[in-house]
Amino acid sequence: MKPYKKVDASDIAFFEEIIPGRVMHGENISVDYSRDEMLEYGTFMPEAVLIAKETQEISNIMRYCNEKRIPVTPRGTGTGLCGGCVPIEGGIVLALDKMNRVLEVDTKNMTATVEPGLMLLDFPKHLEGTGLFYPPDPGEKTATIGGNAMTNAGGMRAVRYGVTRDYILGMEMVLPDGEIITLGGKTVKTSSGYSLLQLMIGSEGTLGILTKLIVKLIPEPKESVSLLIPFDDLDNCINAVPSVLACGCEPTAVEFMEREVIATAETYLGKQFPDSSADAYLLVRLDGASDEALNPSIEALTDTLLSLGARDVLLADTDDRKESIWNPRGAFLEAINNSTPSMDECDVVVPRDKIAQFVRKSIEIGKENSIRLCSFGHAGDGNLHIYVCKDDLSEDVWKPLVQKVMQELYDYAKKLGGEVSGEHGIGHAKRDFLLESVGDRQMQLMSGIKKLFDPNEILNPGKVVLP
Amino acid sequence: MKPYKKVDASDIAFFEEIIPGRVMHGENISVDYSRDEMLEYGTFMPEAVLIAKETQEISNIMRYCNEKRIPVTPRGTGTGLCGGCVPIEGGIVLALDKMNRVLEVDTKNMTATVEPGLMLLDFPKHLEGTGLFYPPDPGEKTATIGGNAMTNAGGMRAVRYGVTRDYILGMEMVLPDGEIITLGGKTVKTSSGYSLLQLMIGSEGTLGILTKLIVKLIPEPKESVSLLIPFDDLDNCINAVPSVLACGCEPTAVEFMEREVIATAETYLGKQFPDSSADAYLLVRLDGASDEALNPSIEALTDTLLSLGARDVLLADTDDRKESIWNPRGAFLEAINNSTPSMDECDVVVPRDKIAQFVRKSIEIGKENSIRLCSFGHAGDGNLHIYVCKDDLSEDVWKPLVQKVMQELYDYAKKLGGEVSGEHGIGHAKRDFLLESVGDRQMQLMSGIKKLFDPNEILNPGKVVLP
Repeated sequence: MKPYKKVDASDIAFFEEIIPGRVMHGENISVDYSRDEMLEYGTFMPEAVLIAKETQEISNIMRYCNEKRIPVTPRGTGTGLCGGCVPIEGGIVLALDKMNRVLEVDTKNMTATVEPGLMLLDFPKHLEGTGLFYPPDPGEKTATIGGNAMTNAGGMRAVRYGVTRDYILGMEMVLPDGEIITLGGKTVKTSSGYSLLQLMIGSEGTLGILTKLIVKLIPEPKESVSLLIPFDDLDNCINAVPSVLACGCEPTAVEFMEREVIATAETYLGKQFPDSSADAYLLVRLDGASDEALNPSIEALTDTLLSLGARDVLLADTDDRKESIWNPRGAFLEAINNSTPSMDECDVVVPRDKIAQFVRKSIEIGKENSIRLCSFGHAGDGNLHIYVCKDDLSEDVWKPLVQKVMQELYDYAKKLGGEVSGEHGIGHAKRDFLLESVGDRQMQLMSGIKKLFDPNEILNPGKVVLP
Repeated sequence: MKPYKKVDASDIAFFEEIIPGRVMHGENISVDYSRDEMLEYGTFMPEAVLIAKETQEISNIMRYCNEKRIPVTPRGTGTGLCGGCVPIEGGIVLALDKMNRVLEVDTKNMTATVEPGLMLLDFPKHLEGTGLFYPPDPGEKTATIGGNAMTNAGGMRAVRYGVTRDYILGMEMVLPDGEIITLGGKTVKTSSGYSLLQLMIGSEGTLGILTKLIVKLIPEPKESVSLLIPFDDLDNCINAVPSVLACGCEPTAVEFMEREVIATAETYLGKQFPDSSADAYLLVRLDGASDEALNPSIEALTDTLLSLGARDVLLADTDDRKESIWNPRGAFLEAINNSTPSMDECDVVVPRDKIAQFVRKSIEIGKENSIRLCSFGHAGDGNLHIYVCKDDLSEDVWKPLVQKVMQELYDYAKKLGGEVSGEHGIGHAKRDFLLESVGDRQMQLMSGIKKLFDPNEILNPGKVVLP
């Protein structure tokens, strides 16, 4: 295939015609467009940044770039952790964060139609007064809903409500050659041919550019409580999780955290966590229609936990108390990131009954390799975030060591029936690990799908699949 | 491409070697293997039927058939309604109904690992005593779970619990060339590359042969009630649905039915329905942890319904009373099928707020074309089943008329933002309607995916996609 074309003055002139005043190139490009939140994977400057506002503009841009063979990398707010929105082949970054309108809230069908650049933190205000809410709840609230769809983001409330995939009913997409297609709609079930919609979800902007999204809303639970449960050690803590899930209380979130990570967050936030008595904690949230409806669940859960060796069950039923627990939890990633000059992340998901085993092994791996690992995660769905911290290691020591440690973590996850990523995706950083996990044949099928949608390989090249 | 090879004596000898005593050919083949439940779409005899019991056998058979270019059509219990398991190109029917074991129930991870031939009606007994259940609940209980996965079957409880897709965590598949792959596993969330698992769900046995399935189980609700709600007319009845969904009662099922269809079921079953006062009914099921937990929901629902013009709200809280309502509902399809020598089915799904409009239009279409239409369906999820009945029409009148009526129904569904099939699939009978619904480009993409998985086009040829 012919090599990628470099963006030149005539290309810039063409883009200026389509989207006047929304073209950046050369030295006008902010370094922010060269990276995401995970600095460890390097920076790659685009040759131009185009700020999109309408589907038709994107269609025109794609048709042009496809003909010229100029790489295009779509980007939301750049909060990813695997380099998915980083233009590793140069070319164009197509910024979608200004396409951020809520186009419709349909209370009868309980759907919302939104543009991909809508930030999660801006969505709830559009739903005020409808009694409806959008359940997916990734920790990073400045992430865009389009980015969430393209990585199948999970989040805290996945235990009860599921992940982003479970809330996407329809999409408008621009294919790499500029054709606009509509997948799904406001219908809530379908058996109408191969699900291109499901294929698009989690495809990280490599098959088409998401320009519109129809999401499912559900009635907002009227009441919620959170329970903080201290345990003497991590094993008891995580071993309690299957019983929490099976006791009939339908938890919304089941998180685990260790004292060490909490301490990092305390330092970062300059605030104390409400309890400091224990080595490990479960944090459980319950949603319900009313206090009366919640009470039997709280009782069942409390009995279950105390019988399994919990030291106590601390109830947080006011907003203040809930915040005092959930704010530190929400700051874990930033706190860890702030505590080290660089880090790498392992976002594995394992069967839920294997979490304790995986966490124990990860602690061992850290010790054996004399490197600091911080972990926390979604105990209720088996998804762990393990951060390997560079601290004061030299670049020469760090580079091969982090590679070795990541390899050991992924190998062990695979042994336990786990997968490479629970919710953050593959990007360009995890492709080799994905290949090791799924094997040659599945990678060939994925790569074949990529070629079918994008024969010129111009859309987000170098991501997810290996050639 | 070379034409399909006819099965000859040397092929039979080869199959006999792989699966001795489980090969049928020539006159030993039952006519059952030539059709599914929808006789309208014709009969197609296979040249041989192979009864599979093990994955490795299937792998060997596929490798052979792929090399020779012999078509292979996988089949469960043949309860489909679109001809999906019918060998329209002849060749081999691969019968999977004897691969029907429950291999594991994992109470810790709340999963079951099953073979594809397991019938829905046989699954609950394997879960007894675990406190767990498998929510998907298609009307046809002799359907296999593999067939359900391959059509993304829905069913009564989809409103609350979702469809089959929502319960599939992992699959073992044999690809058309015999390679065995494993997709997903016991993990409950994943963002690990393109989701081949999601692509397989609903692919109707055209991309690979399902040989093992890992499904998600959830804690069994301890209590349930059903409410039968008579309305003066269908419009009021269906117009109440959005409020039922939004009132916070989290219904498990919301079905609608008309007097005429109930009468057909009464005749078929020789039993009276518990109420005969009204023209249209809603049937709502609520699940909960306890009677106390259900009461607020029953109250909210009753208030909502009475304020919207329901004549009454009849509570069924004993097994007998529940059966007296749900048994007739479960017999609708058979009853209608029994009332006419032939029929065709339209399984459209429309946005929920468009159901009343669609049902009204379908009644009009029936009248305009002087043909009997029977409809019922899942009001809670917008999925309608409309049966066009041949009755005493001659074949010459019926054939063009049913085609015209189906076209009008699908055209109107499309106009309302609907899709061709809510839960029954495409098979060979609905491919043209699928093309009209999704357009050329999406059909080309689906067809490209088919060629990627099955370049020799031997696996279930002539289904879902058009060449």
